[in-house]
Amino acid sequence: MTSRYLIGLDFGTLSARGVLVDSGSGEQVASHAIPYRHGVMTSLPDGSALPPLWALQNADDYLEAARAILSALGSDRQIDGIGLGFTASSPLPATADGVPLSRLHPREPHAYVKLWKHGAAQAEAEAINARGGAFLDNFGGKLSAEWLLAKAMQLAREAPQLWRQAERFIEAGDWLVWQLTGQERRSLGLAAYKAQYDPATGYPVEVLPELAGRLAPPHPVGTAAGSLSQAWRERTGIRGEAAVAVAVIDSHVVLPAVGGVSDGCLVGALGTSAVYLMLGSAFRPLPKGIEGVAWDGSVRDLWCYEAGQAGFGDTLAWFTRTFPRAGDEAGNFQLYNEEAAVLAPGANHLLALDWWSGNRVPLADSGLSGLLLGLSTATTAAGIYRALLESLAYGARSILDRFLAGGFGVERLILSSGLARNNALLVQIMADVFGRTVEVPEIDNPTAVGAAIHGAVAAGVVADYSQGAARFGARTFKRFHPEAEAARVYAELYRIYAVLADDSRVRTAMHALNQVALRER
Amino acid sequence: MTSRYLIGLDFGTLSARGVLVDSGSGEQVASHAIPYRHGVMTSLPDGSALPPLWALQNADDYLEAARAILSALGSDRQIDGIGLGFTASSPLPATADGVPLSRLHPREPHAYVKLWKHGAAQAEAEAINARGGAFLDNFGGKLSAEWLLAKAMQLAREAPQLWRQAERFIEAGDWLVWQLTGQERRSLGLAAYKAQYDPATGYPVEVLPELAGRLAPPHPVGTAAGSLSQAWRERTGIRGEAAVAVAVIDSHVVLPAVGGVSDGCLVGALGTSAVYLMLGSAFRPLPKGIEGVAWDGSVRDLWCYEAGQAGFGDTLAWFTRTFPRAGDEAGNFQLYNEEAAVLAPGANHLLALDWWSGNRVPLADSGLSGLLLGLSTATTAAGIYRALLESLAYGARSILDRFLAGGFGVERLILSSGLARNNALLVQIMADVFGRTVEVPEIDNPTAVGAAIHGAVAAGVVADYSQGAARFGARTFKRFHPEAEAARVYAELYRIYAVLADDSRVRTAMHALNQVALRER
Repeated sequence: MTSRYLIGLDFGTLSARGVLVDSGSGEQVASHAIPYRHGVMTSLPDGSALPPLWALQNADDYLEAARAILSALGSDRQIDGIGLGFTASSPLPATADGVPLSRLHPREPHAYVKLWKHGAAQAEAEAINARGGAFLDNFGGKLSAEWLLAKAMQLAREAPQLWRQAERFIEAGDWLVWQLTGQERRSLGLAAYKAQYDPATGYPVEVLPELAGRLAPPHPVGTAAGSLSQAWRERTGIRGEAAVAVAVIDSHVVLPAVGGVSDGCLVGALGTSAVYLMLGSAFRPLPKGIEGVAWDGSVRDLWCYEAGQAGFGDTLAWFTRTFPRAGDEAGNFQLYNEEAAVLAPGANHLLALDWWSGNRVPLADSGLSGLLLGLSTATTAAGIYRALLESLAYGARSILDRFLAGGFGVERLILSSGLARNNALLVQIMADVFGRTVEVPEIDNPTAVGAAIHGAVAAGVVADYSQGAARFGARTFKRFHPEAEAARVYAELYRIYAVLADDSRVRTAMHALNQVALRER
Repeated sequence: MTSRYLIGLDFGTLSARGVLVDSGSGEQVASHAIPYRHGVMTSLPDGSALPPLWALQNADDYLEAARAILSALGSDRQIDGIGLGFTASSPLPATADGVPLSRLHPREPHAYVKLWKHGAAQAEAEAINARGGAFLDNFGGKLSAEWLLAKAMQLAREAPQLWRQAERFIEAGDWLVWQLTGQERRSLGLAAYKAQYDPATGYPVEVLPELAGRLAPPHPVGTAAGSLSQAWRERTGIRGEAAVAVAVIDSHVVLPAVGGVSDGCLVGALGTSAVYLMLGSAFRPLPKGIEGVAWDGSVRDLWCYEAGQAGFGDTLAWFTRTFPRAGDEAGNFQLYNEEAAVLAPGANHLLALDWWSGNRVPLADSGLSGLLLGLSTATTAAGIYRALLESLAYGARSILDRFLAGGFGVERLILSSGLARNNALLVQIMADVFGRTVEVPEIDNPTAVGAAIHGAVAAGVVADYSQGAARFGARTFKRFHPEAEAARVYAELYRIYAVLADDSRVRTAMHALNQVALRER
């Protein structure tokens, strides 16, 4: 009997990665990664520079990466299904038959994909927020400048002629599914979290009426958008049914690969920044500070609440890069971890606010910055490093506490990512600060595997996400139990953290520094 | 004609240094330094350890150092006068004929010199402060645990039998003058600043009545205690009049060597910590936060107001030691200075509170600690270093501002020490933060030269301190003028610093950390 496979694709900020998974055994067979030709664009093809805060990508880079990965993994193989996770909100304008406008107008910056971190639509987000509306109820009452509506309004305002040619405004993930299948089948996950789509009321097009024809109705995750098109089969050599699932937000697609498929799971993905997803079968009002919630947008038949820390791994990377150890120029944290591990909780006499990249929950203020308190001539470099680990744990606990205060039952606390697997000291400190057992799934390429599980559901290889998680997801979890003594000390330190984090004078000082630096740089 | 000389002695924490100065030309001829045999004692001669916070010295070490230095510099020379600066308050118990009790009871810790930084008399200082009294009016209403009265009370309480044998309780500087001359002539500077002696009311013996016979009346600085005794002439080979001036506090003795001899001079000595001395011919009430004032205790015929920063050079040394640059393992700040110098004021997006070693003015709180605010993943090590330089300047400005608010006319702002001479970036930042011209005296061994000038006044080699400063003191001053643009930016940043320094939540967090660390270490 011929083996059959699934392909999971993970389209990140700088590159795409795919895994090939055996449909029957659930084993990963191969993986393949491709960087985007133009990465994050800092200039247009004619060499002209982009304005500050802009971050664009070229949609054709995604096609190039998809072709290379699908060929490498799928050529001459029976592929049951394909799923994909994608950065979001990363929308682009296209014609009614899917041609990205950047192909037609390569010298027009507004014709390209506005990457998730494109930050130049702040004025538009503020205009939408000033207007307000019930569509923001599930998103803390506030639209982010990174989301689709703000980016669409920036395009409409600044390039009205181009906007008239944009028959579609579409997330890059949805656009790629369209290219692969010939079907414009958008994702409920992308539509809900990034364009405030509500199944009862649709998209909130009242904020920008011309959006009406440019968006298409979305479908729950795990829905097949269609089969891989004939052209793509020829391009890649893929055989079989090759059902392509609708796209999923990259930070959500990991859920079924790490055990996040049931009521009461809180899954933290500790990357450059950290995303926390809380799954619930019953709807509860959005706790204050939590960023968004949708049904059927992450895994099926569950509400998924989203929160995050603006900085996480980037803060640790900053430290090891800024203060490299002799013999450790690569910025690895191993040497610092060894020294920091022998410091007893609280003995360190340091406290940090984890705002090196601003704060998402609960303040939603990118103008905040990091703070270190308690420094003395006895402070060591490893002590500061440990204080950073602790501050990241305090920031995470403040999110956990918000869910608990909102009445959520947190049954499992799962921390995923390379950082969680490689930095046991960090995870143990998080368990101690939470006062709860934390589980780290032991699985490679979890994001791409999660995408493959979406493909499996769409193709009917498995009946549901639970079955998909059992067959393809992590089989072992490393458990970190809190130590009672450490948990007691951290409870005390966390109270100090919470008071400082709530000190408006500190925040005022940070904002005042921003004003000065903006002017003097 | 035979040359005649002065000798200036500087008895510091770990060693003593002397300079030989030509009485006629004012030139430095030679210098000699000797470390103390027992340094700062960490155990008794029998090997038993000292309790926490204790810091003792052996008075006989001073004799050994004095003999070696006076012999090296003065043997077979005509010496007009000798002056000496000494750490204070560093008192010891002695018999009525000057024998230190440590010679009689070497196993009794209370028999030794309690060095200035001996911190174990906190309970006694608090008891005296609880009682209060007018004698504290010129000292901000608060006795420091480092001062003589608290140290005497600790001895009386904890070793009552030894206290009964202590016919004298005397500053080590006064004791050394007594040994050199055979005359117990105490210094008004030591008595006023360190034992709250007031010419009108005497020592405040009401706080500890048994002190009455154990202290002797003091004499203005520049008074000759007597001539070098016959025994010491034989020991050292010194010839001539060899008038010995009464002792001077080491941080004050530098004044005449760096131009600090007239109304309106503010002299900052930037060492491990920083001391600021403000000279005035008219009395003004002690500005809030300023630490003490006395007449005739520093230079003659002037009030001298004292204030300080608990940490200064130690904070910079901590940084370069904790984050050494490759190829700069010695902890030199040259490489950091070069990088920090190119950052524009305010562009750095960082603000620090300069409390790494606690705060003296205005909070008098050793339980405070350092704070860094504004950190991001764009922060550089040199940026943090520059923020430390700036924070030290803000701390100094808060002292300057208190004098200005108190109605003092600041005519000259003089910054002295090796750090001031070697770190031009630091001094320029201070000029910019002050918005005033700052002068750095170009003279070697200024503290010992200052002591020599006191000897010159005592011997009648010069008529007064002004004449002494002119002949023996610094002849050139390097001037640093504020840059208008930098001064404008720093005025703005200083306002942010002042608000943070006044934030009680920040201080509460620091105190709370102390509690945790004390328990968990």
